[in-house]
Order: sequence, then structure tokens, then C-alpha cells
Amino acid sequence: MKQRIITAIVAGAIFLPIAIYGGLPFVILVYLMATVGLFEAFRMKKIGLTSVPGIISLLLLWFLLIPSSFQLHEYIKLSKLELVLIAVLLFLTYTVITKNKFSFDDVGFSLLSIIYVGLGFYYLIETRELGIIYLIFALFVIWTTDSGAYFIGRSIGKNKLWPEISPNKTIEGSLGGIFCAVIVATGFYFLVNFDEPLVVIIILAILLSIFGQIGDLVESGLKRHYDVKDSGSLLPGHGGILDRFDSLLFILPILHFLHRFLA
Amino acid sequence: MKQRIITAIVAGAIFLPIAIYGGLPFVILVYLMATVGLFEAFRMKKIGLTSVPGIISLLLLWFLLIPSSFQLHEYIKLSKLELVLIAVLLFLTYTVITKNKFSFDDVGFSLLSIIYVGLGFYYLIETRELGIIYLIFALFVIWTTDSGAYFIGRSIGKNKLWPEISPNKTIEGSLGGIFCAVIVATGFYFLVNFDEPLVVIIILAILLSIFGQIGDLVESGLKRHYDVKDSGSLLPGHGGILDRFDSLLFILPILHFLHRFLA
Repeated sequence: MKQRIITAIVAGAIFLPIAIYGGLPFVILVYLMATVGLFEAFRMKKIGLTSVPGIISLLLLWFLLIPSSFQLHEYIKLSKLELVLIAVLLFLTYTVITKNKFSFDDVGFSLLSIIYVGLGFYYLIETRELGIIYLIFALFVIWTTDSGAYFIGRSIGKNKLWPEISPNKTIEGSLGGIFCAVIVATGFYFLVNFDEPLVVIIILAILLSIFGQIGDLVESGLKRHYDVKDSGSLLPGHGGILDRFDSLLFILPILHFLHRFLA
Repeated sequence: MKQRIITAIVAGAIFLPIAIYGGLPFVILVYLMATVGLFEAFRMKKIGLTSVPGIISLLLLWFLLIPSSFQLHEYIKLSKLELVLIAVLLFLTYTVITKNKFSFDDVGFSLLSIIYVGLGFYYLIETRELGIIYLIFALFVIWTTDSGAYFIGRSIGKNKLWPEISPNKTIEGSLGGIFCAVIVATGFYFLVNFDEPLVVIIILAILLSIFGQIGDLVESGLKRHYDVKDSGSLLPGHGGILDRFDSLLFILPILHFLHRFLA
């Protein structure tokens, strides 16, 4: 627990000032984190980042991460989806060259990892560009969900939530996490001038808290499926980048789409 | 062989008039073919199209197929890449709900199949919208490559091309296929008013012939990997839609990107 807190303070002391500063330094930080995240995912499936498919994957990841403020189409005549397709054609060609040693399942796994990690972290950049307040809101919802679920689950948790994937989580903890997220989001509403009315903020907090918990279960399921304990060891006491950002990767795209429909 | 020729005539008698007519009937035909193609791919991995991930997949496939002439963004505020991400998040949520019975490998395979089939057939529609002549050119290059490779391979073929994936193909046949494609493309050039000079058409024919053969090997590798003989039985003597369109799915995006860079 002590190690966990120290890591949180050190990582927060690096991440938060850069996130608040924004701009290019934050974009570079996100590129680094996403690259480590892809490395962690690929290691589970034993695909090296310096192999041919690893290099194709890295290039596609870096393309997907390009912020919308950088007008990609002015430089290359291809959309991001077209770049995905080109990567798929290269991957498939590589399965032929290696005589299926790099198999279709490997291509599918690579593609899934790149899109999940690449677009998840892309929306981290986009959320920051929308305004630091949206990012802080998302982080607060996740942190209060996590902490609320942990403490309420420990004190009154009786019924297991999803023991096959994450043995310690309880239904009481999960509901407690949502409850705490709503409380904190409401406090947030009165501190900050949001354009949206309170009821929207509360619904948003409930949705983000639920999807944040799903993102957490997805990552647990991934590790269970590939039989690893932590996605990485970059953050002592927290595991890897994917462990720490699992909820965020899941909710930032959802936050973004909801914001667009409300706008 | 007789059955094969009859099927080719019947299928051609349906496909070609609708392709020449173009417009909505052709779009509907492509939607049907792509749906059968996805069904064939999913059957290899034993994923049903009426299961929850099957329905998510079908919806994403149909979105990816929407022609560029139909202004999707006027109706929904999401790009095709964002729809891919939403499908990924739904797939991942489904892995949690089913406790990894629908596994990450299944998600990866589904995603790969949807993008390969969906965007491959999307470019079939787009190529038709570019002008029927481009589609006929691509079909002629593929047919002459296939026939040229078959007959030249049978008569002078000695050195196996890639026996682990496709045991009957020879290097002589492959080169013969490229040679025949160049001859026919050159004849085409003098019959049709292309904007591009002859040297571009010849280079195009060589590239499309090579990539068409790679597409063919990819499909063979896929069937070998999942241990099936034909992708389907829709076309007696030819196998399924994926067997028949393997080369086309591979070269139409490439033709499209090359066309854009040359334009």
C-alpha cells in the first residue's frame, strides 16, 4: 500500500502538470504512454514491437494518435481508416510470407490492440484539447469510483459482482462506486461553470462510472485470458500503463461521443 | 470443370449486367455479397451471425459499406472509424458479460474480418462509382492473371511457389500470370481512352497482378489455418464468395489509393 501511494504521487506529479500545461508536451507524453501500452498488450501475446508486424503496428498506432488539430489530410491523402486498411493488407501479406507462423489470430489481436490503445489514448489528447476541466472531471469520476468501490466494498460488500473475472469485486462496492462518483460530480458542478445542467452531469457521472468499471473488468479479463498478473511493471504497486488507464481508455471515447451529441 | 464453367456463366450473367448498370442495384448486390462473405469468414471461427457479436459485426459491416456518395455524416455525427471503435467497446463489454467465453481472440478475428470484407467490398462500390471501366480493368487483370498462371503453370511450371499454403502454384505460373496481365492491360490501353500513359497502365497491371496473387494466397492461408476446403458453397465449383473475390478484395483498395496519388 505504501509503495502504491508513493508511485501514485510520483506519477501524478509528472502526469498532472503536463496535462494541465497541455499542448505539445502532453501530446508527447500520451505518445509515450500509448507506445508502452501497446508494448504491454503485445507482450501478453508474445509479439515483439521490433518484429515486422510490431513495426507496422507502431506506425499505425502513431498515426491513429495524431490529434484532430493537426490536419493530417493536408500531408497525406489517406484517412485514418484507410491507414488501418493498409496495415491490415500488410499484416495479411505478412501471414503469407511467414507461412501462417504469424497467424490470422495474431493479426486480429494486433488490430484490436492498436485500435483500443490508439483510439483510447487519442481521445485522451482530444479531451485535453476540449478543455482541461473535462479531463479532470473524467479522472475524478474514475478515482472516486475506484476508491468508493474499494472502501464501500470492503466495509459492506457481500455479494460477488463477477468472480470469474475479478474475484474481489462486490455488487455493493460497484454501486457504492457509482454513488460516490455522483456525489463528487455534483460537487464539481457547483464549483465549475459547466454548460450542461446538473441532471446531465449526474447522468454522465453514472454512465462514466459504469463504463469505467466495465473497462476495468475488460482489462482484468484480458490478463486472466492470457494468464498474466499485471500488464507491466512501469508503475510499482499499480502494474502497467494498461492497468492504470483501463477505465480511462474506455470512458474517454464515450465522454467524447456524448459531448458531441449534447453539443 | 464443366460445373465450374456453368457457375461462372450464371454468376457472370447476374453480376456483370448489374455492375454495368451500377447505382442502387449494384450497391444492394455488393451488400448481399459482403454479408455472405462475412458469414463465410465467421463460420470458419464458428461465430454465428445471429449471436450478439454477430449482430454487432453485421451492423458495423453495413456501416463500413456505405458509399462515399451517401453523406453519412449528415445523418449521424460519427465517422466510420468512430463506429469501429464503438463496435470494439461493445465487443469488449461482451467478453466481460460472457466471462471470456467470447474471447479477445474472437474479438480480434471479428474485427479483422469486418474490416477486410467490409472495406474490400466498399472499394468495389467506390471503384464502380469511379467508372465501370476501372472495375472491368481490375476484373480483366485478375482473370488473365488467374488463367495465365493456371495454363502456363500447367505447361512449363516446375518450381513450387509457396507449397506450404497453396501446393499447386509454381513460380513459372505466377510470372506467366503477370505476363498475361500486362499483355491484356496493354490491349486494353489501346481500346480505351485512359487518362494515364501506357507505362502507368503497365506498372498498374504488374502491381495488381502481384497483389491479386497475394490476396489469393491470403485466402488459401486462411482456409488452411482454419482447416476448411472452401469458404462456402454458394458458387458450385468455385467455393464461396470469399474464394471468388479474394484477389479483388485485395487489389481494389490498392487500385483506389494508387489512383488518388496519380490524380
